[in-house]
Amino acid sequence: MERGSPGASRPVEPGPCLSSLRGAEPAASASTLSAARAQPGSRVIAVAAVLPAGGCGERMGVPTPKQFCPILERPLISYTLQALERVYWIKDIVVAVTRENMGAMRNIIQKYQHTRISLVEAGETRHRSIFNGLKALAKDQPDTQLSKPEVVIIHDAVRPFVEEDVLLKVVAAAKEHGAAGAIRPLVSTVISPSADGCLEISLERARHRASEMPQAFLFDVIYEAYRQCSDYDLEFGTECLHLALKYSHTKAKLVEGPPDLWKVTYKRDLYAAESIIKERISHAVCVVMDPKQDKEPVDHFLEALKNELNDVKIESREPGQAGRDIQQSNLEQCYNFVSMNIMMSDFQETRKLLHMLEESNLSILYPVVVVSVHFFDFKLVPLSQKMESLMWIRESAKEMKKRNILLFGLIIDYSQGEQKLQESLRQGAIIIASLIKERSSALVGQLLVA
Amino acid sequence: MERGSPGASRPVEPGPCLSSLRGAEPAASASTLSAARAQPGSRVIAVAAVLPAGGCGERMGVPTPKQFCPILERPLISYTLQALERVYWIKDIVVAVTRENMGAMRNIIQKYQHTRISLVEAGETRHRSIFNGLKALAKDQPDTQLSKPEVVIIHDAVRPFVEEDVLLKVVAAAKEHGAAGAIRPLVSTVISPSADGCLEISLERARHRASEMPQAFLFDVIYEAYRQCSDYDLEFGTECLHLALKYSHTKAKLVEGPPDLWKVTYKRDLYAAESIIKERISHAVCVVMDPKQDKEPVDHFLEALKNELNDVKIESREPGQAGRDIQQSNLEQCYNFVSMNIMMSDFQETRKLLHMLEESNLSILYPVVVVSVHFFDFKLVPLSQKMESLMWIRESAKEMKKRNILLFGLIIDYSQGEQKLQESLRQGAIIIASLIKERSSALVGQLLVA
Repeated sequence: MERGSPGASRPVEPGPCLSSLRGAEPAASASTLSAARAQPGSRVIAVAAVLPAGGCGERMGVPTPKQFCPILERPLISYTLQALERVYWIKDIVVAVTRENMGAMRNIIQKYQHTRISLVEAGETRHRSIFNGLKALAKDQPDTQLSKPEVVIIHDAVRPFVEEDVLLKVVAAAKEHGAAGAIRPLVSTVISPSADGCLEISLERARHRASEMPQAFLFDVIYEAYRQCSDYDLEFGTECLHLALKYSHTKAKLVEGPPDLWKVTYKRDLYAAESIIKERISHAVCVVMDPKQDKEPVDHFLEALKNELNDVKIESREPGQAGRDIQQSNLEQCYNFVSMNIMMSDFQETRKLLHMLEESNLSILYPVVVVSVHFFDFKLVPLSQKMESLMWIRESAKEMKKRNILLFGLIIDYSQGEQKLQESLRQGAIIIASLIKERSSALVGQLLVA
Repeated sequence: MERGSPGASRPVEPGPCLSSLRGAEPAASASTLSAARAQPGSRVIAVAAVLPAGGCGERMGVPTPKQFCPILERPLISYTLQALERVYWIKDIVVAVTRENMGAMRNIIQKYQHTRISLVEAGETRHRSIFNGLKALAKDQPDTQLSKPEVVIIHDAVRPFVEEDVLLKVVAAAKEHGAAGAIRPLVSTVISPSADGCLEISLERARHRASEMPQAFLFDVIYEAYRQCSDYDLEFGTECLHLALKYSHTKAKLVEGPPDLWKVTYKRDLYAAESIIKERISHAVCVVMDPKQDKEPVDHFLEALKNELNDVKIESREPGQAGRDIQQSNLEQCYNFVSMNIMMSDFQETRKLLHMLEESNLSILYPVVVVSVHFFDFKLVPLSQKMESLMWIRESAKEMKKRNILLFGLIIDYSQGEQKLQESLRQGAIIIASLIKERSSALVGQLLVA
């Protein structure tokens, strides 16, 4: 059993935010904590989580185990760890991985600066892996840095979209009932085949539920269940709630969970997860401009952006004070920036923004999109002459890509007539929406014309 | 009940192919037909399909019923119809839609040139919709153009990836056993809650299966079952196989189906379906060039493309003979074209290709990607001078987009030194791979530089 050491440069409070946003997190979580406190008879509970991650993902049809499959170049399990880390009242997260994946897992913890993670060796089956995780927590020895929790959450490494809300619900229900688990309505009817491969029984769909994760248990309830259960259970069982019922005589409380709890099982689930993640990091755009610049084109462009990206929170910022404004922005978890360069060819705004982003930790977890928008008067300076100076973007983009920052250029001719300009602004907004949505690293450094 | 009229310009044999590929289809299907004939005691069977499509998709979280949600701008149900139409031995396809969606459905049939479709009005529930479809087939009156089939397939409008193989299996099993349905292993354990919301029973996962679609029945078996079943069954039942068992005493044969049979239920399923469709139409690229052009740069570029797109079938073609070559290409269902313009500024190759694509039906079902690649000697003609003549691409792209053809430009400086040129060719291949994969209509008309 080993303890992952957090990286030096990542914020202590994990989660995808600019370092100065740290201060905001405890406030947000405090209300949730008081929700936990509001549960009858509850006090602050010591909670840990165990994640079995020893599977080999044979259903995925790809050689990499599914928990290590990359989404936006980051392994799936890192998203799940991030989701658990964000919940500050989960004290320890124990991950069970196979011996051959131990090194890869250590690299993931370091690269994405995960904290509070301990690794244990996975067993041959899911149940054996969970049991190994529980044993590590039960030891309660000073050298392990882990301590026995009152309640333990069991979650899957391949359910990255677990929210604090459902974790809180299962923990509170486990505290009260001894065991609890998330459930979902069945999508298909469940049937039982006869020996000759024909329909024997068709279950009534409304009376049954799919058992999902997370589940939570009073530590002693589930640990005792694992200690007492048979080898057959450890080899062939699938359901922790069942073990708690059978060996600790504890009836689990069932908690209705949201659809996003689903388990990444097939290749199509990876596609879906990637789209959901892309969508989630596309909800906010920060438009950066110098207040000394001509405000009129910026205002027009903001209007066009707001029309095209109508679900997107757009905030304009002036990075004049060395980027401090952006860091104190209300745009929590903003991974999309548009820098406005009006009638200039030295990309001053873009340079400042890139510098600020390089200093922050923002691109550790997700690729950050930066669109450098250039308003030119093509009548004064023809497009052709601008092209070569704009080659700067091409070179910068190569460097930025190494830091997970995706830089694109966008040119708008501000000398066009009113109607054509409106069309260009609209087109520019559509292009930006697409660059943000697709986050395609193949197109970085390109100069697009709206 | 009404019969959809096929469009005039689409091939009689449906499916996404250039018109000259029609000849290939009967040959391909003949082997499948003989597979059907090879079933013990079977002869050519009259088969129809019923698709209940009256659902309102409340689980999707979007106002549009899920079967009408667009994927690459085409409604989901059109993909499912396409999958069934491709199977030439399905004689009639009866779709049950609500009265308010009848007009929209008629438009879909016309726009995407679906054939063999009849519409009936959906009932209040899934079972009532299926029953309405069966009644239309049972009438067997000359004016309905429908005739009573021996075997009827029941499928969901929201399972677009059904293949001929599994359809054939359920039809053959229905012919033998009276009823048959596709099943899949369970992803989650199924449990039964008690009245107080606690775990009552946890079902053994290995002994149960999820009942999926398609299902098939001897027509008389399922029609009689529907005629005899209770109002309660029609209101609250979910499983056709169950009705066949209960009312026609027919035990359904269960057929193991592939994972792609899954039902598009949540928003994430739409994302997954879009990614699968994009992947499927990205598997082949046709590189078009004039044989009179300098072959050396083309050969280098083909090599780079083959390295970058290693899963992709790449075929080079000479459109010299008025596009006939492309039409007779082995590249069935190729939706991606790269036209090579070497040291020319009149885009002759691209013009020819676009003309040929406009004449074909290729872009009716999927957006077709065309990348116009331009090799220039930047030393002889500087980039800046080329830019304005390349504005032609911008204007053409606008026109082509109306026809679902996505045109992009890509410039490569052929005057660079060997090493830099290799890097540019590689970069060009990466850009092309990305344009094909993303199929982003927001970026059409852009001139990218490799």
